[in-house]
Amino acid sequence: MHAYRTHNCAQLSAKNVGETVRLSGWIHRKRDHGGVLFIDLRDHFGLTQIVADEDSPALSVLEKLRLESVVTIDGEVKARTAETVNKDLPTGEIEVFARDVTVQSAAEELPMPVAGEQEYPEDIRLKYRFLDLRRETLHKNIMTRVAVVADMRERMKNAGFNEFSTPILTASSPEGARDFLVPSRLHAGEFYALPQAPQQYKQLLMVAGFDRYFQIAPCFRDEDPRADRLPGEFYQLDLEMSFVTQEEVWDTMEPVIAGTFEAFAEGKHVTAAGEFPRIPYAESMLKYGTDKPDLRNPLIITDVTSHFEQSGFGLFEKIVGGGGRVRVIPAPGTHEKSRKFFDDMNDWARKEGFAGLGYVTRKGGEFGGPIAKNHGPERMEELYAELGLGENDGLFFAAGKEADAAKLAGAARIRVADQLELIDQDRFELAWIVDFPFYEYDEDEKKVDFSHNPFSMPQGGMEALENQDPLTINAYQYDLVCNGFEIASGSIRNHKPDTMVKAFEIVGLSKQDVEEQFGGMYRAFQYGAPPHGGMAAGVDRIVMLLCGAQNLREVTLFPMNQKAEDLLMGAPSRPEPRQLRELHLRVVEPPKKDDTPKIVSEN
Amino acid sequence: MHAYRTHNCAQLSAKNVGETVRLSGWIHRKRDHGGVLFIDLRDHFGLTQIVADEDSPALSVLEKLRLESVVTIDGEVKARTAETVNKDLPTGEIEVFARDVTVQSAAEELPMPVAGEQEYPEDIRLKYRFLDLRRETLHKNIMTRVAVVADMRERMKNAGFNEFSTPILTASSPEGARDFLVPSRLHAGEFYALPQAPQQYKQLLMVAGFDRYFQIAPCFRDEDPRADRLPGEFYQLDLEMSFVTQEEVWDTMEPVIAGTFEAFAEGKHVTAAGEFPRIPYAESMLKYGTDKPDLRNPLIITDVTSHFEQSGFGLFEKIVGGGGRVRVIPAPGTHEKSRKFFDDMNDWARKEGFAGLGYVTRKGGEFGGPIAKNHGPERMEELYAELGLGENDGLFFAAGKEADAAKLAGAARIRVADQLELIDQDRFELAWIVDFPFYEYDEDEKKVDFSHNPFSMPQGGMEALENQDPLTINAYQYDLVCNGFEIASGSIRNHKPDTMVKAFEIVGLSKQDVEEQFGGMYRAFQYGAPPHGGMAAGVDRIVMLLCGAQNLREVTLFPMNQKAEDLLMGAPSRPEPRQLRELHLRVVEPPKKDDTPKIVSEN
Repeated sequence: MHAYRTHNCAQLSAKNVGETVRLSGWIHRKRDHGGVLFIDLRDHFGLTQIVADEDSPALSVLEKLRLESVVTIDGEVKARTAETVNKDLPTGEIEVFARDVTVQSAAEELPMPVAGEQEYPEDIRLKYRFLDLRRETLHKNIMTRVAVVADMRERMKNAGFNEFSTPILTASSPEGARDFLVPSRLHAGEFYALPQAPQQYKQLLMVAGFDRYFQIAPCFRDEDPRADRLPGEFYQLDLEMSFVTQEEVWDTMEPVIAGTFEAFAEGKHVTAAGEFPRIPYAESMLKYGTDKPDLRNPLIITDVTSHFEQSGFGLFEKIVGGGGRVRVIPAPGTHEKSRKFFDDMNDWARKEGFAGLGYVTRKGGEFGGPIAKNHGPERMEELYAELGLGENDGLFFAAGKEADAAKLAGAARIRVADQLELIDQDRFELAWIVDFPFYEYDEDEKKVDFSHNPFSMPQGGMEALENQDPLTINAYQYDLVCNGFEIASGSIRNHKPDTMVKAFEIVGLSKQDVEEQFGGMYRAFQYGAPPHGGMAAGVDRIVMLLCGAQNLREVTLFPMNQKAEDLLMGAPSRPEPRQLRELHLRVVEPPKKDDTPKIVSEN
Repeated sequence: MHAYRTHNCAQLSAKNVGETVRLSGWIHRKRDHGGVLFIDLRDHFGLTQIVADEDSPALSVLEKLRLESVVTIDGEVKARTAETVNKDLPTGEIEVFARDVTVQSAAEELPMPVAGEQEYPEDIRLKYRFLDLRRETLHKNIMTRVAVVADMRERMKNAGFNEFSTPILTASSPEGARDFLVPSRLHAGEFYALPQAPQQYKQLLMVAGFDRYFQIAPCFRDEDPRADRLPGEFYQLDLEMSFVTQEEVWDTMEPVIAGTFEAFAEGKHVTAAGEFPRIPYAESMLKYGTDKPDLRNPLIITDVTSHFEQSGFGLFEKIVGGGGRVRVIPAPGTHEKSRKFFDDMNDWARKEGFAGLGYVTRKGGEFGGPIAKNHGPERMEELYAELGLGENDGLFFAAGKEADAAKLAGAARIRVADQLELIDQDRFELAWIVDFPFYEYDEDEKKVDFSHNPFSMPQGGMEALENQDPLTINAYQYDLVCNGFEIASGSIRNHKPDTMVKAFEIVGLSKQDVEEQFGGMYRAFQYGAPPHGGMAAGVDRIVMLLCGAQNLREVTLFPMNQKAEDLLMGAPSRPEPRQLRELHLRVVEPPKKDDTPKIVSEN
């Protein structure tokens, strides 16, 4: 007989009745019915009910053990009586009568419970992550993550991609966030950097002729804590293809992404491969007020600026006269909503830092509110007709400079839909946002700068760079969005050294800057580079969406806390003086008020 | 038509003759036959011959391009004449007559050639790795690596393992090598460490109840350059199982390892799953003089000490009298070998730092050499009979203290087999080395220390630790060897806190030391830990064996050089002063002769 188990804790059923079995697992729950002890024995696979009574030598041992102790049970499979069968449990038809027990590991008093799903303070959960991970939801989320990643790998392989591992100890990368640095022991004063993404390496792989690359890639950014990002490391489904247009990247990846979503959506609707909308950035900013639209939200923003060039509503007339925009968000079927509903929206907008959110109410065709009053019912009718709104639909107004109006309208669109419960929670709506502007005007620096990725190919290539207003040039750059989140980002890369130099020149950087900052890649492009492009999808975010989790820590095995501390392993920590000496480093205490750095570690 | 290609460079054959096609790739070779230009166009998949003559506008463009330029060719598939068909090439039946060409990327003068396989200086190869990786053998090796890793993943999944990613920014680990440290920006003076292996995390995963874990895991050790290890990072097939004995680990992993080897052995013999020999450490040290035996080598070392307790050969008698050992390595069929062959072996042993390697020659039954002469022919006959050696077999003698005799005999066994060409190069011989001693006596420190992994379970458990001479205790610890290399190592872990404390006590460490150094894991074992064990296999080493490569750099995408420098990306490098300030660090120039540390980076 196997030393620990003949079956796992999810395997036994009525057809095993009468068999002698051995099970191992954790004591999940104990119920003492006066001389008869019931135990739910748990392992990775499931639960099995164990029974011990006074006939069994196991009883006295099991009685004394705390929950979460690990035991091996030798026993006999018995059918449960009809009234005690548990149909919710795969092993619910049987129980195992314990003949003998071996204690593999007796548990101390637990710092947090495992059975049950009650909330527990995050510090305790992270310090005792090995207990937290035994809990049902987190255990399930982690297994979903494992399965999602395996599924992505399989689909990528089937799509002709090969998985390569790129270096983790490397040089600073140009993604723009802060690098984690790793001091070199052999080269005093020099540091490696952990990759923010394998961007340069994957492009080098294309230049090296490998055609289709992917990687479930660990990425590292030393950013300040943010609610929507874990400190330290995160994972991307990173990919790159040679000899492709952006359309081919989309056509290739839609089946992969839609396929993975469908496999884990548990019946929820997923946008089908081949049917992902491709929404130009400008259109997205107009219709959704964001480049990460939630397409489950049926509300569409419309620009109605032209209606207010001359209006009885002086505020809008003034805004429009000053070059501003007026955007509207419908609030369908709000005739029964109180004035408070509309006023609360306005208050919310002010709290968010906007000047305010105007509105028009309508009930049975009758308009209400100051905008309607001043603009006049005829012109309101005309506007409503153009917008296709009905006699019981309200309307919110976001007005201001174009960027502000778009932002407010975007936020209001989400809030209105939330309040009116217009969002179908049972859908994953996927779409590409395309044609991002290559450059933007940096108001602070008063200069043109790259909007996103400087390595993207500008649409129109060298000719556009030479002849077009930079702020009108789009890039072959795209995002993939789902339910209001950006889940992937990519581009066709600029593989032409002269075009790259020209693109950097426009933001005020010289050829030498390019060579210094991106030497490996720039050099590579001199020796025969294929046209190439790709993207990177956020694995953590996708898993979070698929698990319906609200926090990345709920889908991550051993996350750090928001102070970038690993409470379980005790990282970061003070090194030995010997280690600092070997690395040619001294620690400098952060400057106090007097601003004099003080050396605290003695070499 | 696709913007870049209708086919890849390995797809066209006789059945495409007459079709209009588009191909993209690199100009691999050019042959100018006076007005007719032949080009081998290369991509990831293969080569296709392109032809252009004076009828084609492509000719003048192609003539001017350097090798390795990237082009898109529009043309027509033509059958080659019978005498120009190339049967070695999948596309060898056809050629593509170029009607038009688009230059995607014109190459500069190359710093190293791509076509052909001539040796090239390592510095150039690493700096221009993107060119090096286009070369046939390296490209093929990397693709083998990719396929081996994918194959391992598949087999592990099929064996019921789930792949988990463990943190890369973590705490110092107890593997004993030097950690790479990562300074924390948020916690002045504190550092993360990159994992030397995910040892603690995988054990925590078992404690968390995940049952079967694996990972193709990046591991990091800041070691001084060694010929057989790349600086920086390497990959392990890392795995762990709950509720297992060591036999179950072996039974589970033999099909995985043998399966992967068979899939890539290209017909070479591989030890079948279920048939891996399990050789106790002590036996391996005796018979092969090493714990990494090459079982392709048919020579077996024998201890013949008892034959020399009284011998006419005084030197051996003296060694044996002093507690030393005499070990012999047969040299079968060496009757035709000159005296020089035997004397050279002795010289080699002296050069290696041993006292010397004795020998006996034999030709037609007649013994030769001083040992035979002094020991006497009768006793030599007796010895030969016992060893099963014949009348034309020589014999080498390694004598000295046991460890020295074993080491010399092990090295001589390899050398004799090499010289006599006894090693079948067409075999992968896999075996487990088992029953490693848990402790060893540290001659320098004059104390008992752990031999290998302090977290292994000692055979006999607590009882052995309490009652047995520590130096006689074996561990449930094992290595997997192949052709003289250790390719994996593992153990059943000690999951019992009290046994762990006792095990550390024997080497002079307190409970507090255990808690401080291994807090996360030690704490976890208090709350219900399953018996568990596993192993880690060296991916790089296995790929190297399967590729028949002589150097890890030949199976690694972007390796660092032996000075731990990435010549392609320029790492490590000096950070900006701002970065050091943010990390609360100063660089200290390595001490010069006067030994006064000098601060070189100004904050």
